[in-house]
Amino acid sequence: MRTGSNTLLVCLLAGALLPLARAEEGMWTFDNLPLKQLKEKYGFTPTRQWIDHVRLSSVRFNDGGSGSFVSPHGLVLTNHHVALSQLQKVSSEKQNYVASGFYAATRDRELKSPDLEVNVLMSMENVTSRVMSVVTPGMSDQNAFQARKAEIAKIEKESLDKTGLRSDVVTLYSGGEYWLYRYKKYTDVRLVFAPEQGIAFFGGDPDNFTYPRYDLDMALFRIYENGVPVESKDFLRFNPKGAHDGELVFVSGNPGSTSRLDTLAQLEYQRDSWLPLVIRTLQRRSGVLKEYSSLGTEQAREAKTKLFLLANSLKALGGMYNGLQDPKLMARKEASEKEFREIVATQHPEYAAAWTEIAAAVKQMASRLDERFALSHSSNLTGTAQTIVQYVAEIKKPDGQRLPGFHDAQLGSLRFEMFSPAPVYPALEQVELADDLSYAQQLLGPRNAYVKAVLEGHSPAEVAAKAIQGTKLADPKVREALVKGGEPAVDASDDPLIVLARKMDPFSREFIKWREDNVESVLTEAGQKIGKARFAAYGKSTYPDATFTLRLSYGTVKGYPMNGTIAPPETTFFGLYDRATSFGFKPPFNLPERYIARRDRLDLFTPLDFVNTCDIIGGNSGSPVINRNGELVGLIFDGNIESLVGDYIYDIETNRAVAVHPGAMMEALRKLYDAPALLNELEAPAQSSVATK
Amino acid sequence: MRTGSNTLLVCLLAGALLPLARAEEGMWTFDNLPLKQLKEKYGFTPTRQWIDHVRLSSVRFNDGGSGSFVSPHGLVLTNHHVALSQLQKVSSEKQNYVASGFYAATRDRELKSPDLEVNVLMSMENVTSRVMSVVTPGMSDQNAFQARKAEIAKIEKESLDKTGLRSDVVTLYSGGEYWLYRYKKYTDVRLVFAPEQGIAFFGGDPDNFTYPRYDLDMALFRIYENGVPVESKDFLRFNPKGAHDGELVFVSGNPGSTSRLDTLAQLEYQRDSWLPLVIRTLQRRSGVLKEYSSLGTEQAREAKTKLFLLANSLKALGGMYNGLQDPKLMARKEASEKEFREIVATQHPEYAAAWTEIAAAVKQMASRLDERFALSHSSNLTGTAQTIVQYVAEIKKPDGQRLPGFHDAQLGSLRFEMFSPAPVYPALEQVELADDLSYAQQLLGPRNAYVKAVLEGHSPAEVAAKAIQGTKLADPKVREALVKGGEPAVDASDDPLIVLARKMDPFSREFIKWREDNVESVLTEAGQKIGKARFAAYGKSTYPDATFTLRLSYGTVKGYPMNGTIAPPETTFFGLYDRATSFGFKPPFNLPERYIARRDRLDLFTPLDFVNTCDIIGGNSGSPVINRNGELVGLIFDGNIESLVGDYIYDIETNRAVAVHPGAMMEALRKLYDAPALLNELEAPAQSSVATK
Repeated sequence: MRTGSNTLLVCLLAGALLPLARAEEGMWTFDNLPLKQLKEKYGFTPTRQWIDHVRLSSVRFNDGGSGSFVSPHGLVLTNHHVALSQLQKVSSEKQNYVASGFYAATRDRELKSPDLEVNVLMSMENVTSRVMSVVTPGMSDQNAFQARKAEIAKIEKESLDKTGLRSDVVTLYSGGEYWLYRYKKYTDVRLVFAPEQGIAFFGGDPDNFTYPRYDLDMALFRIYENGVPVESKDFLRFNPKGAHDGELVFVSGNPGSTSRLDTLAQLEYQRDSWLPLVIRTLQRRSGVLKEYSSLGTEQAREAKTKLFLLANSLKALGGMYNGLQDPKLMARKEASEKEFREIVATQHPEYAAAWTEIAAAVKQMASRLDERFALSHSSNLTGTAQTIVQYVAEIKKPDGQRLPGFHDAQLGSLRFEMFSPAPVYPALEQVELADDLSYAQQLLGPRNAYVKAVLEGHSPAEVAAKAIQGTKLADPKVREALVKGGEPAVDASDDPLIVLARKMDPFSREFIKWREDNVESVLTEAGQKIGKARFAAYGKSTYPDATFTLRLSYGTVKGYPMNGTIAPPETTFFGLYDRATSFGFKPPFNLPERYIARRDRLDLFTPLDFVNTCDIIGGNSGSPVINRNGELVGLIFDGNIESLVGDYIYDIETNRAVAVHPGAMMEALRKLYDAPALLNELEAPAQSSVATK
Repeated sequence: MRTGSNTLLVCLLAGALLPLARAEEGMWTFDNLPLKQLKEKYGFTPTRQWIDHVRLSSVRFNDGGSGSFVSPHGLVLTNHHVALSQLQKVSSEKQNYVASGFYAATRDRELKSPDLEVNVLMSMENVTSRVMSVVTPGMSDQNAFQARKAEIAKIEKESLDKTGLRSDVVTLYSGGEYWLYRYKKYTDVRLVFAPEQGIAFFGGDPDNFTYPRYDLDMALFRIYENGVPVESKDFLRFNPKGAHDGELVFVSGNPGSTSRLDTLAQLEYQRDSWLPLVIRTLQRRSGVLKEYSSLGTEQAREAKTKLFLLANSLKALGGMYNGLQDPKLMARKEASEKEFREIVATQHPEYAAAWTEIAAAVKQMASRLDERFALSHSSNLTGTAQTIVQYVAEIKKPDGQRLPGFHDAQLGSLRFEMFSPAPVYPALEQVELADDLSYAQQLLGPRNAYVKAVLEGHSPAEVAAKAIQGTKLADPKVREALVKGGEPAVDASDDPLIVLARKMDPFSREFIKWREDNVESVLTEAGQKIGKARFAAYGKSTYPDATFTLRLSYGTVKGYPMNGTIAPPETTFFGLYDRATSFGFKPPFNLPERYIARRDRLDLFTPLDFVNTCDIIGGNSGSPVINRNGELVGLIFDGNIESLVGDYIYDIETNRAVAVHPGAMMEALRKLYDAPALLNELEAPAQSSVATK
């Protein structure tokens, strides 16, 4: 599943290597679309109107996915697995919408998401020169980093004050460019429709990241503002015919992160340090959740979404790890880096040191990577407690000097998350916190200062029991009151989870500061050198690595060679029943009841899923697939197993994006879910589609 | 497709390495079944009755496949692609049974195959000591080889005279054992049923050797003797339920050849010399046939079966080649050979030289491999002409001194083939002969003696035109008359193809003699040493390499990890329609008309194909899959892509045999082919099945 929600996957900044974008490769920013390639290969030139229409129809789900407006009344289409966290939060022991699905036949039954923020990209402004201007010759990497950080916070704050729009400065091309992205921000997002997880995620973990596939991985939300649905003038009209084999299509969405411009040293760091430890960590967490799930039905329900996300990340990370083990991939990277460094050595010797600087910085990072993981939390509530402790301290400082995430322009979204009324599962939190502490002890040893400070001679289980059983933080009002009381209230609090978070806080701060000074600042400076060298040598002929900002990919509907044969461009409902029957309807190949009872109603020839060559990555989940006419012809929900090296390289031969076909969505809504109102809305007149010659 | 019909794939004799058979590995001879493993793992001990029943129900198709009796009236089930050569031979420009299928609703409409011989294994006798006794200490390898060859011919002739049964001495365990196999031989084999090739080979070359699969690769023949159907007391009763996931099943059939006991030197020879050249040769022949096919519908029909067989071989050979390129496979072989050689060096130093002797022999073979291919024919008629020229000369010699294939005991089958009334396509023969000559010229150079002798200064096209356009050999009566006239008639013949074959003959003889003296005799002696060393060290705990003789494999119905997910144990008719629709019904994913028109009649839940862990290889095509009760629960037709390294190693994780489900065969016969008589016969009472506790 192509979510970008795994927060552990923060990519190290910066990088190098020039992959001259090959055919259909690229996650292009909307200011720099591959117009030449589109014209030459497909005779298609999108108009300004087309580009704006696509951008304004695209929606970012801030918990890690993408989506699009599909009606003029704020209806937004995304994946079931993007909606999953919210489905979990609106469910209860008695009403499990994850399993049973949900449909609001009328607007008054639509279910408000507790903490979902979605964004629409309203404008982009190049602020490179302003950001770069604050760095003066002779400044240390550390001072330059802090100066840049302060300037970025300032730009964001000014923009927010001026426009009221969410304002993010985005670093592109390893620091070669900085852009101010302004978003319309929505926080009243209501669930309209979700099918059963059994059909959305049919085939479960085995089929995840593979194809042929038979999933109806869809969900519909409606965005409200001031208590009424927003008028979404720009929306993508459903074209139930989809796109035919070989047709040009586009994907507009928010790929989370890629490492295609990383240096060889960074890839080796990922291969030898980062990936082994992150995989070990997530496997451990997954084990903890499985054990918890085995305690009973309700425990299994509570853990299910987290387990899903962990399994998803583990499969993706495993594919990345295998990719980096491939000597051919590494040899290709090595050759390409060698070539680029030779050009730089001759033409821009002032940038030539960047590679060794980066190698030194990642070596630094590797030396304290255990701490990075020991200080992280699988317990959400512990994370929230730590955010509260830091929040009250940070907001007293000048904006430019705060910890990352606590700048003025970010506080609105942060508070929305911090005060979320989403349900808390204390028993689960306790198990997770106990394991976090136990893992820290294992990684750092019993005599480590952090371990001693948080355990104070007790066992992880004892500390976790005390902190979680005694805390009142599950109540969002308690959190609000603490934050309102500011630093004095937090300092004085005897809530045991706040007490624990206070013990953790200095270690967290020290680590962040150390990393900024020794890793990030060096990577930023060196990355910027490489970014400038790239522009000097090649101009802006390529695309930047993914940054969970809006990008456009293009490609065609196309099968590919697979395991000795060919994977077809699309699958059908026939295939769904084949695969379910093939496995004797055993989970995860069982079907929801209505798929059994109403099978005869379905036109089994209807295409269900399809593949295309558009270049996507985690975070693109829920992205619309769009045709030349600006219509919706698909819904991205995954990449195939061959695409898991997509973090590092794109290979048109086998890399495929997997999407739900609009015909299948409409067939299911009509024949299985009795949703005529929704169908009517999706079949609305074509006023919003854009024809382009 | 698991045919063993590619005559180019003659395996070099002998070999080494001891793969101690792992779970479910092994193609066991019926005298040495893995009873211990079966009892320990499955609590199953086949009775004598069970074993004999399975053996006597099994049928060998001498043009390269397997089959089984499925009714008491001589009805034999095999694959469509095993029947294919005969289907081609009984078809004509006006009546193309390959494409349209065939069904004889009554016995008088059953179609006699022109040159199909099938065999049933009646007895096996260990003749090792007799064969070995003729070799005396101090004999040269060459003399030993000739002595053994003469003794084998004598044993076969004696047995034939005594029993009237086809009698073959089979070399097992690299010459560690020799067995006399006696077969009941049938030559009146009539076609009863074959579906359209479009469904038998649905998915074509892309899907060949892959899974999941949706093929009805079946055909039914009836064996006649003295003009009436044979009474096949031993037959396998159809069990339409098939075998369930995890159930113990057996495969009884005739695997063609494997190289699992080969030495590392032999594998390197295959990798570096044999496979590259055989692949190049078959690709060239395939190209010639494609060009011929493009001339028109009738030309395409004539070439289709050959093209199919070439494509099949090329895909298999490609998989073998890739397997040998895998450094892990070679490292495993190397380690295992090292271990075995160390044991031999200590315990049986008298055998230790075998490996270097084999290495020297394959080096010899590699040195004249180009000639091996230059002397081979893709033109069948040229091959027959050469056989005639050699036949009349050979039968005048004492039996023991003849060329291989011309021994007394073999003459019946040889004449049956030589005088086949199967149609000859002269235009195709001419194109093929021209290319064979041109290829010889390319491989050996224009100044080579063979090339000069056959071309005599003319172009390959001219020589081929003259030979084929002027020959009368297309008429089987002309062939019979020539053979009847003996050497004088053949020597005096001015038939231009016989004239050409006479020019080729001395080169062929010289090459065969050279190979016997320099390669085969050395490999036989050395292989025997290794075979003896193996028995001495390990006893008879393993199985011999495949030799196109009857073997029993065992395993379970079982899916496997595939391309990031799991392949299911079985597929269904749903999947057939999914895959056809997925590719827009474009060939080779189009369906025969009745599958479109009568889709509604089918129970789409019916299992179509399934996989199991039984160890098979080319030649096993058409083998029955049998349950503990001795019932037919499947029809082997292929291995998956992961099994293509099966020539060298067996891997239970991913190596799978692919079979047609009996439920699908009966469903299709009932609902699509209106074949009630056939269904009645297949649903006959269970008198022939054997229950075993």
